[in-house]
Amino acid sequence: EHFIICGFGRIGRQIATEFAAEGTKFVIVDANSEQVRIAQSEGYNAIQADATLDETLLKMRVRQATCLVAALPSDAENLYIILSAKTLNPNIRAIARASNEEAVLKLQRAGADKVISPYITGARRMAAAALRPQVMDFMDGIVDSDRSFYMEEFLIDAQTCPVAGLSLREARLRSQSGSLVLAVRRQNGTLIVGPTGETIIMGDDMLICMGTADQLRVLNQILDPLTSASDRGSLNNN
Amino acid sequence: EHFIICGFGRIGRQIATEFAAEGTKFVIVDANSEQVRIAQSEGYNAIQADATLDETLLKMRVRQATCLVAALPSDAENLYIILSAKTLNPNIRAIARASNEEAVLKLQRAGADKVISPYITGARRMAAAALRPQVMDFMDGIVDSDRSFYMEEFLIDAQTCPVAGLSLREARLRSQSGSLVLAVRRQNGTLIVGPTGETIIMGDDMLICMGTADQLRVLNQILDPLTSASDRGSLNNN
Ligand SMILES: [Ca+2]
Ligand SMILES: [Ca+2]
Repeated sequence: EHFIICGFGRIGRQIATEFAAEGTKFVIVDANSEQVRIAQSEGYNAIQADATLDETLLKMRVRQATCLVAALPSDAENLYIILSAKTLNPNIRAIARASNEEAVLKLQRAGADKVISPYITGARRMAAAALRPQVMDFMDGIVDSDRSFYMEEFLIDAQTCPVAGLSLREARLRSQSGSLVLAVRRQNGTLIVGPTGETIIMGDDMLICMGTADQLRVLNQILDPLTSASDRGSLNNN
Repeated sequence: EHFIICGFGRIGRQIATEFAAEGTKFVIVDANSEQVRIAQSEGYNAIQADATLDETLLKMRVRQATCLVAALPSDAENLYIILSAKTLNPNIRAIARASNEEAVLKLQRAGADKVISPYITGARRMAAAALRPQVMDFMDGIVDSDRSFYMEEFLIDAQTCPVAGLSLREARLRSQSGSLVLAVRRQNGTLIVGPTGETIIMGDDMLICMGTADQLRVLNQILDPLTSASDRGSLNNN
């Protein structure tokens, strides 16, 4: 139930900050002793080792991990790590950094669940900031963790969710919580963007919702009354 | 009514691709003759010059430009360009690239309307992909121009918009167009996230909406029947 960050350069460091802000349990690995020293001085759990070795990944309990982030500057090393991690734990969620479009495709082929190229992402955001300034400001507001609106995802458990089987109108999520259901992803992958009052909430649906921390907390209590008390405290820290 | 891109490196190139896909009129400036040659070979309007000189900015008609993007690798040069451009044309929308958090603050102080650090942005997206995978996939779908959902912003003109003064319920934007109003930004800056049926559409409101290209086209016809035929053709190209 922990996350693994491979590489504590500029990118890895920022990722660690985000994970820490969310209260996520994670461990850092970097081959460079100075980077490891910095990570440890910031209070993180960090070890010095070569993340491309199975031995290192096993030491970081890759088989028990939820998610691994390969954030090294080298595309080749990130690919090697993704391939190794997915072999040792096919269920791990693997996120990789890529330096260009070509590396994005290769890392996807190696099994990465999500590949992000800071250059491409940064350029797209700059273009969007030029073309659609208000949309961009709005997206920033709901993506960055230091703003007051958040997007969260909620998995519907047919056994425990009291509104499973109801329509959105019947469930009254909006009027009860104040948060907005932006989209519903069905178990078969279908994405319903902007569901209507008639859309039925089904077991294993993923609800993509937007609201303030308080609104999302209330929504979580409605959707998941049994576990909501314990597992969503992290929003308090934002 | 044109855009200016300063710097045709990896970032500038990607921005040019995005602008071209939207049918935006733009001109590129780069001090390096090889970069200029590449830009021209891709069919872009590009000149070889030092963008930190007022002379260059004036040659690129900075006074008539809507937006300038400073995408050079050097924070100092980008800052110089932003300051010069804002002096020559205080109304220009200025977007800058920054290499780190410190440079972000300085570029903002120099007058940049939006500053983006590819490293910080990339790392935040990697963290979000780890923490909220479905939200991330959803956001990708509505931000990238190669997917089927888009976010667009619509400025309400009290003179020409037939639904100005009506509530969202009365305006029936959802049922007529299929698109979703995510937020309303009032002229005074107030942001109403997830407006209800009772929210009134007012003159000078900016409506932030989500939908397919077709849905947004219909929405634009409803909100702006006089000019919609001419100015929104760009969505066809996506
Ligand atoms: Ca959280
Ligand atoms: Ca457009």
